[in-house]
Amino acid sequence: MLKDYERKKPENKEAINAEIKQLRELLLGQQQLLRDAKLPVIVLIEGWAAAGKGTLIKEMISEIDPRFYRVVSPVIVPETEERYPFLYQYAKAIPENGKITFLDSGWMESVVRKYLRHEITKEEYNRRVRQVNEFERQLRDGGYLVLKIFLHIEKDLQFERIQALSDNPATEWRVTEEDLWQHREYKRFIQAYDAFMDKTDDILPWHILDGSRRKAAVRDGMKLLVQRIQHGLDNGRYVGEPFKEDFPLKDMPKLADVDLSPTIDDEEYKKELKKLQERLSELHNIIYRKKIPVILCYEGWDAAGKGGNIRRVAYPLDPRGFDVHPIASPLPHELNRQYLWRFWTRLPRTGHICIFDRTWYGRVMVERLEGFCSEKDWKRAYNEINEFERQLTDWGAVVIKFWIHIDRDTQLARFNERQNTPEKQWKITEEDWRNREKWFQYEVAVDEMLQKTSTKNAPWYIIESNDKKYARIRTLKIIVKALEKACEDHFERMMN
Amino acid sequence: MLKDYERKKPENKEAINAEIKQLRELLLGQQQLLRDAKLPVIVLIEGWAAAGKGTLIKEMISEIDPRFYRVVSPVIVPETEERYPFLYQYAKAIPENGKITFLDSGWMESVVRKYLRHEITKEEYNRRVRQVNEFERQLRDGGYLVLKIFLHIEKDLQFERIQALSDNPATEWRVTEEDLWQHREYKRFIQAYDAFMDKTDDILPWHILDGSRRKAAVRDGMKLLVQRIQHGLDNGRYVGEPFKEDFPLKDMPKLADVDLSPTIDDEEYKKELKKLQERLSELHNIIYRKKIPVILCYEGWDAAGKGGNIRRVAYPLDPRGFDVHPIASPLPHELNRQYLWRFWTRLPRTGHICIFDRTWYGRVMVERLEGFCSEKDWKRAYNEINEFERQLTDWGAVVIKFWIHIDRDTQLARFNERQNTPEKQWKITEEDWRNREKWFQYEVAVDEMLQKTSTKNAPWYIIESNDKKYARIRTLKIIVKALEKACEDHFERMMN
Repeated sequence: MLKDYERKKPENKEAINAEIKQLRELLLGQQQLLRDAKLPVIVLIEGWAAAGKGTLIKEMISEIDPRFYRVVSPVIVPETEERYPFLYQYAKAIPENGKITFLDSGWMESVVRKYLRHEITKEEYNRRVRQVNEFERQLRDGGYLVLKIFLHIEKDLQFERIQALSDNPATEWRVTEEDLWQHREYKRFIQAYDAFMDKTDDILPWHILDGSRRKAAVRDGMKLLVQRIQHGLDNGRYVGEPFKEDFPLKDMPKLADVDLSPTIDDEEYKKELKKLQERLSELHNIIYRKKIPVILCYEGWDAAGKGGNIRRVAYPLDPRGFDVHPIASPLPHELNRQYLWRFWTRLPRTGHICIFDRTWYGRVMVERLEGFCSEKDWKRAYNEINEFERQLTDWGAVVIKFWIHIDRDTQLARFNERQNTPEKQWKITEEDWRNREKWFQYEVAVDEMLQKTSTKNAPWYIIESNDKKYARIRTLKIIVKALEKACEDHFERMMN
Repeated sequence: MLKDYERKKPENKEAINAEIKQLRELLLGQQQLLRDAKLPVIVLIEGWAAAGKGTLIKEMISEIDPRFYRVVSPVIVPETEERYPFLYQYAKAIPENGKITFLDSGWMESVVRKYLRHEITKEEYNRRVRQVNEFERQLRDGGYLVLKIFLHIEKDLQFERIQALSDNPATEWRVTEEDLWQHREYKRFIQAYDAFMDKTDDILPWHILDGSRRKAAVRDGMKLLVQRIQHGLDNGRYVGEPFKEDFPLKDMPKLADVDLSPTIDDEEYKKELKKLQERLSELHNIIYRKKIPVILCYEGWDAAGKGGNIRRVAYPLDPRGFDVHPIASPLPHELNRQYLWRFWTRLPRTGHICIFDRTWYGRVMVERLEGFCSEKDWKRAYNEINEFERQLTDWGAVVIKFWIHIDRDTQLARFNERQNTPEKQWKITEEDWRNREKWFQYEVAVDEMLQKTSTKNAPWYIIESNDKKYARIRTLKIIVKALEKACEDHFERMMN
């Protein structure tokens, strides 16, 4: 704890320099091994203003090949801060396998400052602490080596250093209002840091370094990094255990029990479509102004009618306010990161709608069945995904998930039609036929997915799509209802 | 021209609807052909506020598979606008092969507004017009199908439409201060639009549509799009002709004539290194405050010592203010776009330094020699690159390019040393040996590159690196001098 942290004794300077030199060489050798072992590393450096975070990072990277690291300083860009979920900018910054990201202050500083400035409530503070723990566990379980350092200096030393910076015309500009505020509020900060570290120490422990001894702090930081990497190299990539948290779940039927007979006649379809699209268009205006983010997820059998369904939903929307993200196999730089990364980076801004044509559920379907991830990985994913989606709905997003459902005979008929219609042939591939072979394996996976991830906050809807028109009306009705509710809830939240 | 544009006559509504239906079907069929032909399409929709740009885009995309298009509305994010070159956000938005980007207003609106608001000088306006022409030509020559539409309405109609939007509580918020300003200044705007279109009509022509007839405008816009695509499909991917503009060039020696004997003794190296690094550190502070962007480009023979050189430059820099971009073979999503795209997207913000470890010059070296692009492509690239770099220096960036040079014997010695040192083996690959075989072909290409692209504003420096230490001191000296000059120039610019 910072409160009762004791300054370290001075050490022989030359001995420290010799140690640093040795650690640099070790780090130089580890680079290549890290790359071979495909291990990603995150070094989070938190600490007081003027504690020496920049210097520590500078020394840590000095021998590392620039191809293997990146330094990220989360700048306070209001546009990003306010319009994306709290963890967005950190999730975006995670490295590829074999590479290192250094964070020059991160999620701890962000939460503590906002809390002390009363920009977030106690409730929101607690939520963010929980999100941080979820985020860190997911990184650890996904094989990331994470090192968390806090660089500590006492109030009097901070005063001296800030004064020295201010007195020098070349460095004066480095002292910000924020730093001065922190210094004045040193007592409240130390309590808040301690409280935050206390709450986020179980999954990935904090390391407090004595910033009053610059060289020794560099040595200690480098030693921690070398040890952390060595531990990873010795033990191989860590794969987290599956776990279960109690999310409030909705009851879902088995796919086999779903009645696929509902249809709609053409007359009614046209009438309803027009009415619902008009309403959706109005609602898009409202959610845009209220800055409510909306995330629509489409999964379903091949040839179930996802594309046409999405087009009917997208049509009435203002093209400036929505995006459709078709999700194919991950690209190399996506495959080399935690599996949710490519979805984090595609989240909509507040007030925008984004439609995912296939989603992160690939983890528990195709990746499970094709062995693209380990059993532990996909079993753990149900809860990881529930956490991810809760972070989205906590942020204020409307999250709706559709399973576009047809039966096997209907799929066959549509496959054959595609095969026999020249303009549609591109829609049918060898892979579709191979997937069809695995229909019953997929059915097991989908049933399990629907049971385990249809949370109250981000529910699944099975959409009967043997009649595509019926399916379109159903999804539109669900979306309209959910957006209407979100607009009401938003009003209530504003009033409280 | 807008000034004397005549409203079209009303047409039979049902006939228009039938035409639109037919055009939709044509577009639906073209999608797949576009994809097969790997042709990228950019549709730029400019026009008056309330002219119906959103509706036009909405109708154009209504039948296109969401996987094949994106709508981009350049939002005015000051962070992006002020901290990157003017064309940055448009360059970022260009589509992959086989896909379509719709721009809901773009570079024309941006230039015209800034000019009318006196935020840019006449001189800067002219520069931006030139940059737009360069950008459009580079897109066209790179195989992009670009369609430029201006949606026109007269002042009285704009008044009616804005009034209707304002009177309706659901749409009132859509009328912005910007729109009202444009309406009040209609006369100045129409002149400015006409002038801009006049200056940017040669390479890619403008199409003016009559926004007073909504349905007819949609029909006309779709017809233009279908024709544009059909023309591309019929004629195949366009490859631009090489061309030559007179850039002021520096004289460069042939590589074979470079004296590689200079060395530095250890004592002096250490002294100079320390002095130069300290100075560079100070300068980094200054350029950060003055918001001068710096782009350092490294090219050179394999094993010439680029990595170690870059590390010595990076070491004194504040890690929060620089990035190193190692450039390897392009990833699929990079390969599928104009070759400069992956560099546009990696540009530094103002005040930041970015170091490219290999660069866009791959176009005229490896891509030329390995046949990854056509002869016309690489021959055209010298001027395209000169234009690109002039856009960077016009923006205020310092651009310095190093060719790290060694002789063949030295390369062989270093290859052998790498091969025989276990920690260094990862640095040497089969490909390095293959490239070595092509030394003399590369020499021809590099000589040509140095002759044709060492502009006064973005010069090349050949760095003698048989003695790596000598090379490091030389690059540091060049960088320090260039940054000092940039700081002075900056002061002068502020005073004028």
